[in-house]
Amino acid sequence: MSSGPQTFPQFHLELPQWISDFFQQQPTKFPTPEARMSLVTTLSKLNIEEGTGGPFGAGIFRTDTHQLIAPGVNLVLSSHSSLAHAEIVAIMLAQQIYGTHDLGANNLPPHELVTSCEPCAMCLGAICWSGVRHLVCGAKGSDAEAIGFDEGPKPQNWTTGLEARGISVTLNIERPNAAQVLKNYVEQGGEMYNSRQGSIDASR
Amino acid sequence: MSSGPQTFPQFHLELPQWISDFFQQQPTKFPTPEARMSLVTTLSKLNIEEGTGGPFGAGIFRTDTHQLIAPGVNLVLSSHSSLAHAEIVAIMLAQQIYGTHDLGANNLPPHELVTSCEPCAMCLGAICWSGVRHLVCGAKGSDAEAIGFDEGPKPQNWTTGLEARGISVTLNIERPNAAQVLKNYVEQGGEMYNSRQGSIDASR
Repeated sequence: MSSGPQTFPQFHLELPQWISDFFQQQPTKFPTPEARMSLVTTLSKLNIEEGTGGPFGAGIFRTDTHQLIAPGVNLVLSSHSSLAHAEIVAIMLAQQIYGTHDLGANNLPPHELVTSCEPCAMCLGAICWSGVRHLVCGAKGSDAEAIGFDEGPKPQNWTTGLEARGISVTLNIERPNAAQVLKNYVEQGGEMYNSRQGSIDASR
Repeated sequence: MSSGPQTFPQFHLELPQWISDFFQQQPTKFPTPEARMSLVTTLSKLNIEEGTGGPFGAGIFRTDTHQLIAPGVNLVLSSHSSLAHAEIVAIMLAQQIYGTHDLGANNLPPHELVTSCEPCAMCLGAICWSGVRHLVCGAKGSDAEAIGFDEGPKPQNWTTGLEARGISVTLNIERPNAAQVLKNYVEQGGEMYNSRQGSIDASR
């Protein structure tokens, strides 16, 4: 880095090309919780196969029409950003689509976040600020921990913290399928992209 | 939105122009914790004055040379992203500068995050995954809560969660100055850009 007056970079994030291709063959509406979970679990699986990131998928859906607004996959390695968890990517893109930081704004339909695995500490906080009204999770946090990912400093009664902020929670939708993707990732030698390389803890 | 095959937007974030202008007149190194805190508190103050976001500032610094790597200010409203807290922006940009998701990578110097206010639940998690080795805070979370911001579902002993992950913490650096910026924001009628407009809770 130069020692003169500092300039700072921009941050740019986009979904991998395979996601656009994949959605050419998908419906735009996913009527049941199982169908929505199946979609995000498929995204998590494809994200491994395509080599674009870790084994996590998510999506923001309208709760009235069950339309997908924005998908998300883990892009930590490819985007050089420890923030690019699947949930964060989905929230980030959905808010860009509407041009607002608040997916719960009065002039918008209600939204839910569907995620292939329970949120880590960061994503838990992000969900609170996103404006979504409902959270649906597949695999348990303990399933992610079982393969070496760290959930972070998250209150034990984390669903209470969401419910206190008007966000209802549904757990364990299609958990076996979602958890199997995590197992496959580690069995295939997927990278534990922990912050602080050399630390015993691994973030996702 | 069209009902045909879906395309998804990109996310783009850059610092406001005033930050580049401001840094034309700044040193690149900030030798004491107080000097680093003074810088990020000044950023939080200018962010209000310039109308670019909420009353929060942050920076990623090298802990060896005390060089500023990337500043951050709250850009929630202007970037249409509930994720764009000052700490997140600083982490995001510092990782782009190095081209890695891990500011704690073995080939990098050690880094610290200095923030004008203790992190909310989301930023607490994000700090764990960022690779920083040290956290320095100005105002207390209770100072932010006193003006109506919500800290989110954060464990009571949140510093323990950082220390368990190899991140040391220093609190209350120049707290009165940092807390005064928060008070000024609300006295000047600054927007409480809460998610879920109409909810009693306010995110920052």
